Amino acid sequence: MLDIKYELTTSPKEKPTDESKLGFGKIFTDHMFIMDYTTGKGWHDARIVPYGNLELSPASMCLHYGQEVFEGLKAYRTKDGKIQLFRPDENFKRLNVSNQRLVIPHLDEQDALDALLALLKVEKDWVPHTENASLYIRPFIISVDPYIGVRPADHYMFIIILSPSGPYYSTGLSPVNIYVEKNYVRAVKGGMGYTKTAGNYAASLIAQDEAHQQNYSQVLWLDGVEKKYIEEVGAMNIFFVVNGEILTPELVGSILPGITRKSAIEILRDKGYKVTERRITIEEIAKASDEGKLDEVFGTGTAAVISPVGHLKWGEKVMLINDNKIGKISQMLYDTMTGMQYGDIEDKYHWIVEVK
Amino acid sequence: MLDIKYELTTSPKEKPTDESKLGFGKIFTDHMFIMDYTTGKGWHDARIVPYGNLELSPASMCLHYGQEVFEGLKAYRTKDGKIQLFRPDENFKRLNVSNQRLVIPHLDEQDALDALLALLKVEKDWVPHTENASLYIRPFIISVDPYIGVRPADHYMFIIILSPSGPYYSTGLSPVNIYVEKNYVRAVKGGMGYTKTAGNYAASLIAQDEAHQQNYSQVLWLDGVEKKYIEEVGAMNIFFVVNGEILTPELVGSILPGITRKSAIEILRDKGYKVTERRITIEEIAKASDEGKLDEVFGTGTAAVISPVGHLKWGEKVMLINDNKIGKISQMLYDTMTGMQYGDIEDKYHWIVEVK
Repeated sequence: MLDIKYELTTSPKEKPTDESKLGFGKIFTDHMFIMDYTTGKGWHDARIVPYGNLELSPASMCLHYGQEVFEGLKAYRTKDGKIQLFRPDENFKRLNVSNQRLVIPHLDEQDALDALLALLKVEKDWVPHTENASLYIRPFIISVDPYIGVRPADHYMFIIILSPSGPYYSTGLSPVNIYVEKNYVRAVKGGMGYTKTAGNYAASLIAQDEAHQQNYSQVLWLDGVEKKYIEEVGAMNIFFVVNGEILTPELVGSILPGITRKSAIEILRDKGYKVTERRITIEEIAKASDEGKLDEVFGTGTAAVISPVGHLKWGEKVMLINDNKIGKISQMLYDTMTGMQYGDIEDKYHWIVEVK
Repeated sequence: MLDIKYELTTSPKEKPTDESKLGFGKIFTDHMFIMDYTTGKGWHDARIVPYGNLELSPASMCLHYGQEVFEGLKAYRTKDGKIQLFRPDENFKRLNVSNQRLVIPHLDEQDALDALLALLKVEKDWVPHTENASLYIRPFIISVDPYIGVRPADHYMFIIILSPSGPYYSTGLSPVNIYVEKNYVRAVKGGMGYTKTAGNYAASLIAQDEAHQQNYSQVLWLDGVEKKYIEEVGAMNIFFVVNGEILTPELVGSILPGITRKSAIEILRDKGYKVTERRITIEEIAKASDEGKLDEVFGTGTAAVISPVGHLKWGEKVMLINDNKIGKISQMLYDTMTGMQYGDIEDKYHWIVEVK
């Protein structure tokens, strides 16, 4: 059992009065969890302290060499006032997969979950009450040795911060437009694409920026080797419904193994849909669109849960999907997952962890 | 002209008395340079302040999404007490290339150089006096918005820190052993490989670690697409002398355009050597080794200047190069470049900038 020291704030902040203006990732709660790692000593000094600035040496390795990993999940408030998490064990399992690739020491997954539950107990009043709003949870690890040689660090911090966030879709679930990136590459097999690490996001910013300039909200990445196989959308995994069959790229090493992706596949198969994980070319999707067989396209991710895609641009070709309307499968998945998360639907898969 | 505010320390540190124990990147001087960037305002508040911790929000974007770029160069003390830099303009030019890829705002290169010169003037006594020791200079930029949405930041810090460092080769120039990496990939065309950014180093740590376990000091990266073309060594670029001709990988987008690499090519061509920049397969190098035509292999980089390679391991094959001795060309380049850097050889290329 993790031994956590508590130093609680004496000047709690005002909680946001208008939850419709929360936005995402800008407001943080009163406390954070911190635990240190030192080579030879392991993880130590677990503590919940007032949220505030970190004192970091300008030579801290994380500021130079990007030895940084993170996770993202949410706490949801049910109608009867319970606070719930959705598969948090999967997040901490994935954090260790990222750790391994980035040569960051393993973190006991039960300790990490205990830390999160302890922090949420302190901060439970910060979980928003508005429908579809939630408390975004950001666990992350940074290397902090004050040393600018290139090598894995000997000192790390594991930190959890919390941010009350508004509904992803302020006006309800609605289709997004994405565009197939042709020049830039996010990740390639042998790289870090399957991990949640800083560098993957840094690499993606320029393409995201160019997409925005063309009024597309996100980019669809192709594989970095042949530039023909569909990978992911950076903030989400991608699914295609072609002639009734559900297709999603298989996890080949350059794609993030999304927890919403995994859950969507499990729900779909449980409901009798055929789901195939395989390599998918962009040509194949364009052909299906031309032939009227591309029934739905949607993304899966923690932030949006399900994002129906209305337009998919590939070079000069713009595919209109399902008349820019929310598809039947997208809607079903969204309703099922958010239903479980907010406690309106029975948790038949035992994915929910209640904060007690 | 950059307007710099000075806040000088009232408690200067003791300078290292035994310069033979400096090592690399562990000791920092009394002051650092900082300048902030705010969208709409540009770069502002240039200042030289006592070296010390940065106060960073735990939500600072650089700790999550790796929007971080850096440079590395050195200040050298000549026998007659002058302090010199080697092509610093090239470093700040490259910093802006990195900025562009990472969607970080452009930094005026003259301002950056002025900032460095002003800081070095304050810290000139920290430049080591020992032969082949130097003051390592680390300019870097980090994104500091306290916001965990994925997008380019609106707030950055440009910081320069200085670290007195010992000679790279404590016992004089000597060959290193490197090994060809077959599983991991550092970067691929379309990615960030040509920039000096955190993610490239993060991606390389695991391979470096495995190389060390096999008693190799560094890894030679192959291209991430076909895994057959030679790219670079992570901390340095690589050159091969085959049958008298000097070969080095051409800059195809996944390789860092090294300033020492560029200088080596210019010196070699000036001295009448044939230098060819092209794609080079590892098979070709192994064949040259088998046929006794692989005269020399050496790396180029700011830290070591020139690193002769004694053994090159590719799968089960270990190539012994030049009997594990320093080659003629390696030695000449090392002597020429360090000679200019330490003021023992005339600067016929006008590469030296004196700190006055």
